[in-house]
Amino acid sequence: MASNFNPTPRILMGPGPSDAHPRVLKAMSSPLMGHLDPEFVGMMDEVKSMVQQTLLTKNHLTFVVSAPGTAGMETCLVNLLEPGDECIICVNGVFGGRMVDIAGRCGAIVHRIDTPWGEVTSPEQLKTALDKCPQPKLVALVHAETSTGACQPLEEISDMVHNAGSLLVVDAVTSYCGVPLKVDEWGIDALYSGTQKCLSAPPGLSPVTFSERAVNALENRKTKVQSWFLDLSLVKNYWAGAKRAYHHTAPVSSVYALREALALVLEEGLENRWARHQKVHQGLKAELEALGFKYLVDEKYRLPNLNSVILPEGLDEAKLRRQLLDDFNIEVGGGLGDFAGKIWRIGIMGESCTMNHVNMLIGALKQIM
Amino acid sequence: MASNFNPTPRILMGPGPSDAHPRVLKAMSSPLMGHLDPEFVGMMDEVKSMVQQTLLTKNHLTFVVSAPGTAGMETCLVNLLEPGDECIICVNGVFGGRMVDIAGRCGAIVHRIDTPWGEVTSPEQLKTALDKCPQPKLVALVHAETSTGACQPLEEISDMVHNAGSLLVVDAVTSYCGVPLKVDEWGIDALYSGTQKCLSAPPGLSPVTFSERAVNALENRKTKVQSWFLDLSLVKNYWAGAKRAYHHTAPVSSVYALREALALVLEEGLENRWARHQKVHQGLKAELEALGFKYLVDEKYRLPNLNSVILPEGLDEAKLRRQLLDDFNIEVGGGLGDFAGKIWRIGIMGESCTMNHVNMLIGALKQIM
Repeated sequence: MASNFNPTPRILMGPGPSDAHPRVLKAMSSPLMGHLDPEFVGMMDEVKSMVQQTLLTKNHLTFVVSAPGTAGMETCLVNLLEPGDECIICVNGVFGGRMVDIAGRCGAIVHRIDTPWGEVTSPEQLKTALDKCPQPKLVALVHAETSTGACQPLEEISDMVHNAGSLLVVDAVTSYCGVPLKVDEWGIDALYSGTQKCLSAPPGLSPVTFSERAVNALENRKTKVQSWFLDLSLVKNYWAGAKRAYHHTAPVSSVYALREALALVLEEGLENRWARHQKVHQGLKAELEALGFKYLVDEKYRLPNLNSVILPEGLDEAKLRRQLLDDFNIEVGGGLGDFAGKIWRIGIMGESCTMNHVNMLIGALKQIM
Repeated sequence: MASNFNPTPRILMGPGPSDAHPRVLKAMSSPLMGHLDPEFVGMMDEVKSMVQQTLLTKNHLTFVVSAPGTAGMETCLVNLLEPGDECIICVNGVFGGRMVDIAGRCGAIVHRIDTPWGEVTSPEQLKTALDKCPQPKLVALVHAETSTGACQPLEEISDMVHNAGSLLVVDAVTSYCGVPLKVDEWGIDALYSGTQKCLSAPPGLSPVTFSERAVNALENRKTKVQSWFLDLSLVKNYWAGAKRAYHHTAPVSSVYALREALALVLEEGLENRWARHQKVHQGLKAELEALGFKYLVDEKYRLPNLNSVILPEGLDEAKLRRQLLDDFNIEVGGGLGDFAGKIWRIGIMGESCTMNHVNMLIGALKQIM
């Protein structure tokens, strides 16, 4: 027989999930309704409109994939790439590398632009790649690399991509609702995000959006999309059809939570939310630097919401991280890949982005360091 | 600005989701924890063990796909099929047809056995198919066809499949925790289910299990699995590795809910739960037949938990169904595909399987028919 259900309350300051607002948790506990219930269909429309507002886009094909951000990534790539298509993928961390893997599984010819982890891809690098491959189907970048804390500038690159007649695909899992992200203004053609970062909803859903140009590419595919579950020609009739067609069963409770989290973002205002992340970041940064932590990413490209820091010398990062969790119930993230054992990733995202969180973390660190 | 969040409480008697137990809803509202938190990793182990117990299997590769049942279906097929593989898929409703579509997208050569909707595939039909294709990689069937309410006998077919040296793949989305389902005893090699049917957890997750034979097939693949998100060679290290490897972010809150729903099943006892579904079905059946409804499926192959019934003549099914929803907050399902507009699918699944539910529905029907 299973023991009682008593998860320990944690303070979530890792790379996600972040703390959820009580209103979001309360929404999750509402009794379920059918996913084809007219009231739920209305809620799907409402969620779609709220995702459009928070992504600053008018894209009609905007909806939420019923699976985590990685499935959003796969949705963008399997729908836009066909076997033999050429694409350019910029890799400066785990998630760019993941895109390369997925694009390869689509049968695409992948040209990668490799940049040291913690840095960002430059327009010059893209120019060199476009010289070799002048008309890729798409160019993909990670806006906010969750593995390094680097924020990729997109505007100049967007122009280059469109001048080449290509589509701009962007991973915005960690940037969405935390730092400026302007889908229409920046000319992003396909974008996926997650719910458990600066949106502070539970993990499990991936908001996505596709521009007219991207929809045009979808409509001109010669082959079937290799995934049935993620095939937009089918999914779009579930989320955005004139008459809803059954495709799969949407995760009703998670959509409730997402709806409430999006309402909180709109109540705060996107610009206020971006400013809050920047302000709390400044407070955290001052305290961390005073303790001897060093930022991994150059200030110019530093994400405010995901603070990647190198620990002061002589500290056992795993032990210290475990102590934070066991003695203070505070979670911070370790490094991934080459950075495993070397850095911490401290998230101040959404509801976890308050000076109270900073003070709890810094206070605890002062006691155990 | 979004309106307040006030979903109307419904009585869920359609094909899923079913009503959730208050303990499940309460679990969903627990504060989140990190998906790599040692406590959450422990919960994943616990969930895995509970899924094994409820599926009556010792399969080591048993876990939960972080997406709805359709993604579970795709997980089984994309991992077991490679381009050029032959397979036999039995189609007697929507979900068999969906498997054919997915297997085709895997590049497999699909031999379909078509049976009229509402009936089940016979051993003789399989024999004929095996005469034409004597060594398929796998044979796939739907145990409980959600679109028709038919329950497919599996034991005799399982022997035939294994004698052919093939793998038996089973869709158990609607049967799991509602009717007898014995993975090891019946020799099922790969199985996927859903959470929102007889388990009465929210939709969004898909419990799956793979036998040693299936694992052997996975290990002998010559090509990469076409989906990164569903690639078991990667996912298994997240759910079942000696050292947990980050793959994606599990939907933490949904796992909480699933854990509590599984605890409720184990507290009730599987056999008691099967008996309850059968008993309430008998009560519902007597009442429906008295009102002039006729069952679609022959009694021998009838699912107790999903009652597919043809409406008495002269009734407008869509109008009546809408009246049930609007005036009584009761959801029943309409027909899919060829049965759209002709049948109702009345679910008495999990927490929705009580005589109180039957009495509410029958009472409402008597008032509006």
